[in-house]
Amino acid sequence: MAIFINKTAKQPELGFGQKNYNKAVRFINPDGSVNIKRTGLRGLKNLDIYHWLTTISFVKLILVILAGYTVTNLLFAFIYYMIGANHFGGLETTSEGNKFMSLFFFSAQTLTTVGYGHVFPQGFAASAASAIESLLGLLGFALATGILYGRFSRPQADLLYSKNALIAPYQDITGLMFRITNKVQYELIETEANVTISYNNSETNKREFAQLKLEINRINFLALSWTIVHPIDDESPIKGWSVEEFMKRDAEIMILVKAINDTFSQTVYSRYSFKANEIVEKAKFKPLKQEADKNGRVVISVTDIHKYEVLN
Amino acid sequence: MAIFINKTAKQPELGFGQKNYNKAVRFINPDGSVNIKRTGLRGLKNLDIYHWLTTISFVKLILVILAGYTVTNLLFAFIYYMIGANHFGGLETTSEGNKFMSLFFFSAQTLTTVGYGHVFPQGFAASAASAIESLLGLLGFALATGILYGRFSRPQADLLYSKNALIAPYQDITGLMFRITNKVQYELIETEANVTISYNNSETNKREFAQLKLEINRINFLALSWTIVHPIDDESPIKGWSVEEFMKRDAEIMILVKAINDTFSQTVYSRYSFKANEIVEKAKFKPLKQEADKNGRVVISVTDIHKYEVLN
Amino acid sequence: MAIFINKTAKQPELGFGQKNYNKAVRFINPDGSVNIKRTGLRGLKNLDIYHWLTTISFVKLILVILAGYTVTNLLFAFIYYMIGANHFGGLETTSEGNKFMSLFFFSAQTLTTVGYGHVFPQGFAASAASAIESLLGLLGFALATGILYGRFSRPQADLLYSKNALIAPYQDITGLMFRITNKVQYELIETEANVTISYNNSETNKREFAQLKLEINRINFLALSWTIVHPIDDESPIKGWSVEEFMKRDAEIMILVKAINDTFSQTVYSRYSFKANEIVEKAKFKPLKQEADKNGRVVISVTDIHKYEVLN
Amino acid sequence: MAIFINKTAKQPELGFGQKNYNKAVRFINPDGSVNIKRTGLRGLKNLDIYHWLTTISFVKLILVILAGYTVTNLLFAFIYYMIGANHFGGLETTSEGNKFMSLFFFSAQTLTTVGYGHVFPQGFAASAASAIESLLGLLGFALATGILYGRFSRPQADLLYSKNALIAPYQDITGLMFRITNKVQYELIETEANVTISYNNSETNKREFAQLKLEINRINFLALSWTIVHPIDDESPIKGWSVEEFMKRDAEIMILVKAINDTFSQTVYSRYSFKANEIVEKAKFKPLKQEADKNGRVVISVTDIHKYEVLN
Repeated sequence: MAIFINKTAKQPELGFGQKNYNKAVRFINPDGSVNIKRTGLRGLKNLDIYHWLTTISFVKLILVILAGYTVTNLLFAFIYYMIGANHFGGLETTSEGNKFMSLFFFSAQTLTTVGYGHVFPQGFAASAASAIESLLGLLGFALATGILYGRFSRPQADLLYSKNALIAPYQDITGLMFRITNKVQYELIETEANVTISYNNSETNKREFAQLKLEINRINFLALSWTIVHPIDDESPIKGWSVEEFMKRDAEIMILVKAINDTFSQTVYSRYSFKANEIVEKAKFKPLKQEADKNGRVVISVTDIHKYEVLN
Repeated sequence: MAIFINKTAKQPELGFGQKNYNKAVRFINPDGSVNIKRTGLRGLKNLDIYHWLTTISFVKLILVILAGYTVTNLLFAFIYYMIGANHFGGLETTSEGNKFMSLFFFSAQTLTTVGYGHVFPQGFAASAASAIESLLGLLGFALATGILYGRFSRPQADLLYSKNALIAPYQDITGLMFRITNKVQYELIETEANVTISYNNSETNKREFAQLKLEINRINFLALSWTIVHPIDDESPIKGWSVEEFMKRDAEIMILVKAINDTFSQTVYSRYSFKANEIVEKAKFKPLKQEADKNGRVVISVTDIHKYEVLN
Repeated sequence: MAIFINKTAKQPELGFGQKNYNKAVRFINPDGSVNIKRTGLRGLKNLDIYHWLTTISFVKLILVILAGYTVTNLLFAFIYYMIGANHFGGLETTSEGNKFMSLFFFSAQTLTTVGYGHVFPQGFAASAASAIESLLGLLGFALATGILYGRFSRPQADLLYSKNALIAPYQDITGLMFRITNKVQYELIETEANVTISYNNSETNKREFAQLKLEINRINFLALSWTIVHPIDDESPIKGWSVEEFMKRDAEIMILVKAINDTFSQTVYSRYSFKANEIVEKAKFKPLKQEADKNGRVVISVTDIHKYEVLN
Repeated sequence: MAIFINKTAKQPELGFGQKNYNKAVRFINPDGSVNIKRTGLRGLKNLDIYHWLTTISFVKLILVILAGYTVTNLLFAFIYYMIGANHFGGLETTSEGNKFMSLFFFSAQTLTTVGYGHVFPQGFAASAASAIESLLGLLGFALATGILYGRFSRPQADLLYSKNALIAPYQDITGLMFRITNKVQYELIETEANVTISYNNSETNKREFAQLKLEINRINFLALSWTIVHPIDDESPIKGWSVEEFMKRDAEIMILVKAINDTFSQTVYSRYSFKANEIVEKAKFKPLKQEADKNGRVVISVTDIHKYEVLN
């Protein structure tokens, strides 16, 4: 797991700095994004349009496309109206409103290249403006193709994390453990996990980071589920901590999982974090029900990974 | 072959769990898919449309596209019909059926942006509906472009596996061996194999997994064929097993092959498995015929890799 | 950081040769490109059109597209004019200039496949030419789609480098240090840096290259900023050098940063170099202001990385 | 250079087998393709259309597209003709030939979705056929987009190899050496080379393969040129060989180069081979002329890498 180990530094340098914030902070959001805002650069540099369009929700994307379509058509309708309705053949010209509406839809027919032709440009200005609009339509469409492909082909590790991390019995000691499973019907191979804890050190008044050693940090197939276990032994930085201790220190357990989707030959990453209030003491996970159905197919229910029982 | 070796765990953790099923199970299907069904998540989360369309058969894809095309046109024909046939110029209006048919094909002409224009929308509602349909057509087409590109550019290791795994003489002992070859005219370099066996342990009543050590687990070129050999020495978990033993234990030999197609710079993966009834004892593979043709070109027949001879 | 270390050679072989140029040279430009011109190959081999269109500025790309659109339309207008305006239905034929203009816009309507149809081809020659033009339009558009997608999906490490490299106090000695931060709202993980110095050796009259060892050459997250430090210890090739010495030797500090954008699963590279006049002695970087806002979000101003204070 | 080293096998297993062919063979063609023909599989399995279209020459691709366009239009013209010319409005119907021609061009206008509309379908059969054709056109175009993008974005190491491999003085002994340079204006980093020799062993009557150890097998930048040197020391398998010996043994020096184009973050591969008649004894390469121009830019002429001088 060479990719996750920092060979030269004695204490892991995570790039988060060591400032002890006055308030509670969360470095990694539940959706995996990192909770940092960067300011100071003017202009659009901070706003990577393509990446933004690739990651926003589908509903937002539809709204952006509809808005862009409407605005572009309004703009060209205005240009055509300025050129003059008399430069368009077949136009409904009963009123100024009708003229503008007809030019708006002529623009739509040009932008999408549907070009019915019952309305058509005449003369240089009208023809040139519509020639540019149809080119723009093609380019906009090329862009949409790229964005849709970018959205769909983006590598995604659809991992489900157990809602809680448990401090459960592990061999003779206890371990901090949580479970992950694969939500989709494609397999992940060579799954690797890396777990780090961040907490306030009240003595040094700095935020510290420590890597949590795992019992197993890599499995060949993520076929069913994987219980990731940090044994709380003498070397563990969280030895003896109660949930109250985790809370007092504003602790955050940060997880990075890397895997390969071999069907699409994609390396996928997943981030997650547990805050102190998501840690449960004296509990253990219930085994996943797994049965072979009549076709020799193994059946599991993925949401079972959340289930645990409290120990007395 | 760092990617296949689990460095931290003493016994390979494959992610399949250790349950001993009452029935015979097959973890890996002959087509390489993993034989697991995941339940428990509601909604479409389980159904990744893009990946589904990228991996279904070509015939199914054509049917999906035709169905989507027809349904969309029916829907818009219905909308246009509701708006009223009198809002469309050039429409054949001899009967209600003719009207609907004409509006259906007007819809098709709008969706594909062919827009002949012998039928055309008039007034706001008809124009707006067709403006939306042509935009939808462009986006649907953008999607189709992405899906087709995704299908074609998907990395595929077109490997042919010998139909049987043999227990054949190997040096002074025997070895479990099978052969692979590349079906297509592109070379694979840096080919790596990883072989694991899964079987029921009657003593512990658990399903166990063991990695089978290979004589050579990596070759530079997969130019002709490669006989992958697990020497059945004293350390082999299958030492002394007969085919009956493989069957009694419901054994499955699971293979993961990783290679690089250097023409397209793609890392490709291939999975395969042999069940006990595909293992043949006391047999050995026949050598592949390989000849240089008159151009100094080496000629092989790939299906020769299935051929073996029974030993007495 | 296996990728950056040259295991077999005792002195790093960077592939730049060892010639001592008479003039000052800069191997790496501030934008990261390598400052080498290759001559000697005839024809277009040197001009990789796709890669060129993928990397030129957006404004240049628009100009190239507009120029290509205009030239193609002029070409086809000329062909149509040669075929004869009488082979086109619906053409404005009041003057030769009008004819040509109408044919030019007919060409545009064909190339973009908008095809209003108020002008349409009649007879074999006109129909065949426009059939070819519309095919060409589709192919050109396919090309544009590929180029736009190629531009947007190109992996980019939007790193900001501090304007100066400082020779600042470091533990008991001094260190050569500079800072980098991530300009965009996507995280970079597994960030690795490699720093090499190139300078003229006045004794051997050769240009020499030496790798500068780093205190830490890899961090897990490039979340805030990273101060990259080369400790100027006894083994450092720049031990005791003043800024004048850097200038006299025409020194260049060349940096290669590699990181993974885990949102898009892309490996990204960034190159940068500092020339001698960008090195500042007896100065140290000011700490970055980082605050938690009311949502527990950490806020930084990226341009703060340029700020340093001069030491007395 | 982990990717090129075979850790488990004592002698390199290249996947070419060990047959001693009666005739001279060449495993790797000068264009880098591997000289093997695979037979024995029926049907189209062997013919990967997408990959074929992605790798054929540009001229061939244009011919394939034109042929497909013409054949599809002929097919649909035939279907329309069978449906009957009277089901098409605006058709030129002066003769049967004219009818067919008009239907052919109507087909072209439908397939490209230009749809002028001076000819248009009437009735169910004609409308349905053209609705299918326009859908087919869009899908065909989606395919073309994918193929063009696949062609352009395919990683390519545009390396130039010196025409000859030399046996030249190297330190106190001699070395087998050749040079490579980068033909295009993009840099290659982390360039690795692997050199293997294949020859007939007259004693064992088998074809043998041996890896040739290199002085340096990896450089950081392939900025100018790289002379790849195999020192012919006591351990070299070609110690004492004359060019005649290379010829007698039908030797082939096979080269695999791997590099990273950091501008596009692509790993690229290049293969090449030298046959015995391309090896020159008692010669040495002339140094590449490299000059700094007035902008501090280093200028080289790439074809200089072929130049060598014969030694007495």
